[in-house]
Amino acid sequence: MNQSAETVVRAFCDGWEQRDLERVLGLMAEDVAYQNVPQPVMQGRAQARRFIGPILRETRAIKFVVLNVVASEEAGLVLTERLDQLYYPSGLVEIPLMGIFVVRNGQIVQWRDYADSATVARGFASAGVKLTLDPAD
Amino acid sequence: MNQSAETVVRAFCDGWEQRDLERVLGLMAEDVAYQNVPQPVMQGRAQARRFIGPILRETRAIKFVVLNVVASEEAGLVLTERLDQLYYPSGLVEIPLMGIFVVRNGQIVQWRDYADSATVARGFASAGVKLTLDPAD
Repeated sequence: MNQSAETVVRAFCDGWEQRDLERVLGLMAEDVAYQNVPQPVMQGRAQARRFIGPILRETRAIKFVVLNVVASEEAGLVLTERLDQLYYPSGLVEIPLMGIFVVRNGQIVQWRDYADSATVARGFASAGVKLTLDPAD
Repeated sequence: MNQSAETVVRAFCDGWEQRDLERVLGLMAEDVAYQNVPQPVMQGRAQARRFIGPILRETRAIKFVVLNVVASEEAGLVLTERLDQLYYPSGLVEIPLMGIFVVRNGQIVQWRDYADSATVARGFASAGVKLTLDPAD
């Protein structure tokens, strides 16, 4: 039986907090579309891995503080207001944002986060962190 | 009897599209907290009026394209994914965003929109529009 859409998203956020890359990727569909709006859409789990892998590896802790969450199970939609906290050895990157997840058959097929790019850039700069991508296979 | 939270938010978006300032403000509580994250919170209907008034007056049309909306009526929460389109005589300002509304007793008491400030600034600059505030009373 499928888990509820909200359960999937909460497990996904927990996977980030555990910095468990395989668990995070396993909750995304093979053809997931993942976008940090207005950046380009990352198409598929392999692209998501290249982006997410270095973040989970280089942080020493992650907190996704879920301020508000509302789900429509009929539509497979989960909308969140969050404060994402990435604890790098060199400093904390804190990102206020909202995110939308579309869940089908227990997996995330679409994920879009809306944050202020200037806030994100300033956070990474002040922590002295350069976002990297894992090399393509 | 109170309308549903989602009905209030849809009427509010419609008020923007009608560019009907009194209708828009009437759906906000007197002590509404309105924030375009990460800008400072506007406290109260008078501050909201100073910000919203010039936008409704200077545009020739507004569309709030609601891409996704999910509500929790128990919690009085309405979360939206939208594409806001402000048609100024000099050009279109188009803002992809997510917004959260907290509704109590048929009025919006909190409204936070999350957009990329660089996208917003670029949009207004390319339309040649300078955001203004109405003078304080």
